[in-house]
Amino acid sequence: MSTDDTTDASTDTESKCGASTSTETSAETDDGSSKCGASSSSSSSGCGASTDDADEEEVGATVDDFDADPGQLVAVGLGPGQPEGMTARAKAALSDAEHIVGYTTYVDLLPDDITERADDIYDTPMCGEVSRTEEAIDRALAGNDVAIIGSGDPNVYALAGLALEIVESKGATASMLDFDVVPGVPAAQSCAARVGAPLVNDTVSISLSDHLTDMPTIESRLHAAAKEGFTITIYNPWSRKRRENYEKCCEILLEHRDPETPVGVVHAAGREDERAEIVELQDLPELGETDLVDMTTTLLVGNEDTYVWDGRMVTPRGYETKYDY
Amino acid sequence: MSTDDTTDASTDTESKCGASTSTETSAETDDGSSKCGASSSSSSSGCGASTDDADEEEVGATVDDFDADPGQLVAVGLGPGQPEGMTARAKAALSDAEHIVGYTTYVDLLPDDITERADDIYDTPMCGEVSRTEEAIDRALAGNDVAIIGSGDPNVYALAGLALEIVESKGATASMLDFDVVPGVPAAQSCAARVGAPLVNDTVSISLSDHLTDMPTIESRLHAAAKEGFTITIYNPWSRKRRENYEKCCEILLEHRDPETPVGVVHAAGREDERAEIVELQDLPELGETDLVDMTTTLLVGNEDTYVWDGRMVTPRGYETKYDY
Repeated sequence: MSTDDTTDASTDTESKCGASTSTETSAETDDGSSKCGASSSSSSSGCGASTDDADEEEVGATVDDFDADPGQLVAVGLGPGQPEGMTARAKAALSDAEHIVGYTTYVDLLPDDITERADDIYDTPMCGEVSRTEEAIDRALAGNDVAIIGSGDPNVYALAGLALEIVESKGATASMLDFDVVPGVPAAQSCAARVGAPLVNDTVSISLSDHLTDMPTIESRLHAAAKEGFTITIYNPWSRKRRENYEKCCEILLEHRDPETPVGVVHAAGREDERAEIVELQDLPELGETDLVDMTTTLLVGNEDTYVWDGRMVTPRGYETKYDY
Repeated sequence: MSTDDTTDASTDTESKCGASTSTETSAETDDGSSKCGASSSSSSSGCGASTDDADEEEVGATVDDFDADPGQLVAVGLGPGQPEGMTARAKAALSDAEHIVGYTTYVDLLPDDITERADDIYDTPMCGEVSRTEEAIDRALAGNDVAIIGSGDPNVYALAGLALEIVESKGATASMLDFDVVPGVPAAQSCAARVGAPLVNDTVSISLSDHLTDMPTIESRLHAAAKEGFTITIYNPWSRKRRENYEKCCEILLEHRDPETPVGVVHAAGREDERAEIVELQDLPELGETDLVDMTTTLLVGNEDTYVWDGRMVTPRGYETKYDY
């Protein structure tokens, strides 16, 4: 997946279950309605979020609600999504887990030899990260060894931070759950590999989703990154509701960088409809209105040294100024 | 490995073979002397670099020197180093390769079932990336399927860009070699996993090695990153010859950030002497004179929201301002 699990929670609509509506696999519903649609092979919980009442946005269960010795909670990064992109350690962690929790799209990509070993798989197509993470933690507090999965890496706009925050809010501790993080290949690097060598040196990742970070902050960061010659990975560049964020981003980049700066555009990485193209910075605004740029797209913006050669983006290491080769 | 193969080439000493001296596994020789020390199970080349003459720094062989149909060249990221950190795709690429080329320390970490399949393994302990990459390309031009390996990811201060540059300089093309990049878990994410959730949101990676990027540029980038609230991964923070780069970095960070900002310090990630500690920004200058901070160390600098809880660094996603949990 090209967006490291953020689109799952980065929309502006909120569903009744108190979490953001995920619109990654379905058409975005502009009226903000959603159905939880949680599925679980054997589970007594619904989507695991708080019930519809005055306290609907407070944490559900706390550590005092459980009698059992807690199991382990592991946050596992899957990489781009296909099994070949998983590390051996990630596979082992998933094989060891009794319960696997995650977004349906990623659960569906897990190989059978992993899913068949689990006692239970809890996946939700529509509810957001918050409720799913709460569910995973509750199951661990109830005594199960739980793996919560996400695409990419758990430290990239993803579940590591959220899991720790929610564990604390439940009055539990990370140590009690022997909390561990299994790293994975982030979207920046898996998409970069598709277009050659776009990143290479000092680099920045910025998300255009202003669900949790305000736009003035994002703009300030874009200015700083663009001025300093970093190669830049743009996550969550576009959504129907946030076109202006994309437009603003293009404007800021063009303010500081040559309009012919190469940009790698990777759409739907790892999926059947994956496309990887190398364009110029000045092409980006128009591309926002095409299928190439949407919420499954990752942008890799070159710096002043980046060039295109033989269909690949190349950001030089800097050796050519020291050696003839 | 915590430094994604950069220390291999990031020192200031140059050996006779025209490449930087690698000092990663041996004590740094302050007088700059080195021995190539290349090893290969069956090879007619020495360290693969140009010979000692007036042209010593020009590229050796070019595409015209080869008659065979070229083989494939694949740049493979190993992740932190141990086999469990490799993706299935990386393992497959190495198993398919006829020749494997890389820095001795990483070649030694490859599992036997991979190394036994290769026709030849070319590893060098002392010569730099440039000569080793040239050697890998020559072998591919000669008709062999070659995998060139590095720790972390090939797009992180690593071999993807260099390989493409050298291919071009030899008059060959990436397409001719069916050049491919197999991504791996970068040091930023594998080290982050060791201390919890330090990165999480918009993030920057900066290397303090000024071998290829000058210090004023590095300083400017540090200022920009520190001002903008990015979480920051510092690669190559320290070497005996570059202490002042580390001191300057600490100074710049302390100029913009609270002295109690959490910093994850991961030394020798993936090795026997691995240590992961969480300290405060104000502790960093002194730590530069201890064993904890050296060329195998990666620093993970929190932002203004980062805190330490139950022995983990937590940079919140931002949900706590929207939901009670």
